[in-house]
Amino acid sequence: MAKLFIPGPIDVSPDTFAAMSRPMIGHRGAEFEALYASTQPVLQELAGTTRPFYLATNSAWGVMEAALQNLCAKKVLNLCCGAFSDKWFSVAKSMGLEADKVQVEWGEAISPEAVKAKLEEGGFDLVTLIHNETSTGVMNDLEGIAKVVKSFPGVLLVVDSVSSFSAVPIEMDALGVDVLLAGVQKALALPPGLTVFSLSEAAVERAKAMPNRGYYFDFVEFVKNGEKNNTPSTPAISLIFGLQHILGVIAAEGVANRYARHKANNAMIHEWGKRHDFKNFAPEGNQSVSLTCFHTPAGWDQSAFIKTLKAKHGFVINGGYGKIKGLTFRISNMGNETPETMQELIDAMNDVLG
Amino acid sequence: MAKLFIPGPIDVSPDTFAAMSRPMIGHRGAEFEALYASTQPVLQELAGTTRPFYLATNSAWGVMEAALQNLCAKKVLNLCCGAFSDKWFSVAKSMGLEADKVQVEWGEAISPEAVKAKLEEGGFDLVTLIHNETSTGVMNDLEGIAKVVKSFPGVLLVVDSVSSFSAVPIEMDALGVDVLLAGVQKALALPPGLTVFSLSEAAVERAKAMPNRGYYFDFVEFVKNGEKNNTPSTPAISLIFGLQHILGVIAAEGVANRYARHKANNAMIHEWGKRHDFKNFAPEGNQSVSLTCFHTPAGWDQSAFIKTLKAKHGFVINGGYGKIKGLTFRISNMGNETPETMQELIDAMNDVLG
Repeated sequence: MAKLFIPGPIDVSPDTFAAMSRPMIGHRGAEFEALYASTQPVLQELAGTTRPFYLATNSAWGVMEAALQNLCAKKVLNLCCGAFSDKWFSVAKSMGLEADKVQVEWGEAISPEAVKAKLEEGGFDLVTLIHNETSTGVMNDLEGIAKVVKSFPGVLLVVDSVSSFSAVPIEMDALGVDVLLAGVQKALALPPGLTVFSLSEAAVERAKAMPNRGYYFDFVEFVKNGEKNNTPSTPAISLIFGLQHILGVIAAEGVANRYARHKANNAMIHEWGKRHDFKNFAPEGNQSVSLTCFHTPAGWDQSAFIKTLKAKHGFVINGGYGKIKGLTFRISNMGNETPETMQELIDAMNDVLG
Repeated sequence: MAKLFIPGPIDVSPDTFAAMSRPMIGHRGAEFEALYASTQPVLQELAGTTRPFYLATNSAWGVMEAALQNLCAKKVLNLCCGAFSDKWFSVAKSMGLEADKVQVEWGEAISPEAVKAKLEEGGFDLVTLIHNETSTGVMNDLEGIAKVVKSFPGVLLVVDSVSSFSAVPIEMDALGVDVLLAGVQKALALPPGLTVFSLSEAAVERAKAMPNRGYYFDFVEFVKNGEKNNTPSTPAISLIFGLQHILGVIAAEGVANRYARHKANNAMIHEWGKRHDFKNFAPEGNQSVSLTCFHTPAGWDQSAFIKTLKAKHGFVINGGYGKIKGLTFRISNMGNETPETMQELIDAMNDVLG
């Protein structure tokens, strides 16, 4: 039994598991509809939107692919800066879509200017952005990029906020984001298997006009069923019980307090890194507040550090992802962590460092 | 708090919820791989196959659609006999596929002869069958239909065993089934959100040659990741803990005993129906053993019966589905029910009938 400080899935609290253990209910009736409806206000507050939220029984890649399937009639521009954002481009290609990309080195952020220059080439009707690239710890300039995309009429913006949702404020409506999606196993601190997403009116209109959308990921089906507080397919009921619970916890804490807590917990890890001369992989000004990605110093046995931390103290951190595996390591501070629990981790890491 | 005797989701046992409440683990490591591997033997036994099983984080419609996307290069024949099998045809159309159907009245079973006659028209490369049509309580003649399909070279057979899997023996390899899939919220007695499926070699080969398969539902990705005991996308870890648990329960009971138990429990409901002159909606010889669908007798207030049963005894049965809502009612005996718990339901129903 080890506690996870990896950037998702993360530690799930006993009270969340208790909520998830409520007896099953049928999903085509008033009880489920009330459950579904109860999730809306806090999700909307976290996203800065008055648009409804949809509950999709799948991990985030499902909705990331669905956004392409429902909204890309011409050509998608994928903004690529790490394992997950790079992969979104591959997924577009695997679907047979026309796709192009802005590619920066892993560890760098996407610049709004580069997006502008690419969109000026013309022919695009969709842009995908990962707000917080979980593989590198880079948080992109959502506001700057959204402003650029919105200056190109007919180009919709899909934002994956998987590892930023509920950790930092997001203003979907004010920024003109057309699809905002998040997996629940990151800062929402639930087990994986559910993705929440919201759609602008323009996204719904675009989807309605798209042929061959299929069924499971058809946005129009989500809208139609959502109007009755329901889902197109059988939903992950236990996870939605868990979601209802955690949204209640978030409301009780207050979203502003939650954001401040993530920032403060993250600062503790940055401070710890500085003390031990671990360099941040993400550049100043574009650092995630939900996870931290450090360079592995030359000659330092990262693998032994991670193993001992787990064996001796029962804490799990992550040794990098994809092509920077081993070259970086990552520590999450998402979810329910407090200054006290972060300090426990820091004390343990200090003990292992000796 | 009412106990569900509807045909899915069904009652989930406290020990299953306890298994689902195990602390999170990362999904890209040895612990998850061991968890994944542990599910294989019993799933394979239940399916009568030596082929690997895949764990898809979505409800069954996802894999039902995926089968079309990965395997239909020419034209699909959908065998339609109720709400869910009819819908599979609509889903094929919604994807822009060439599709045709064998359609029988709801409450009737698909005849192998009709399948043969339709396939002889030529041009098909895929057939979809729902083994146990949950909306009507009809169990189709899987063996007879599989034999027909296998006599047409190049035609693959997809079988949805959502509400029959682990309730009746299925011989995937012997019958030459190419895709066998099941949702876990039926006879496996887990909360919804996970679908298990297996693929024949021919299905894998067909998928490899299909263009534009996308990512989330790409069978080739499932095969590639499955070889490493992993999944393409972040898996529903808690549900897989639950699956591991219930498969252990099934192994301890013995699959033959489990099948016999479902049959005996089902017979109790049939017997109860006879005593009260409720007529079975499904024809003799094609009746499901995991749920029973009865005609609503003329003049009988079904809705009052269902409401009182819930209010007075805390048991929930279902008042029909889709276009036979109100005209039929359904009682499930799937999962962990015993003669004793079935008798409790029967006593309660008798009490309400007066």
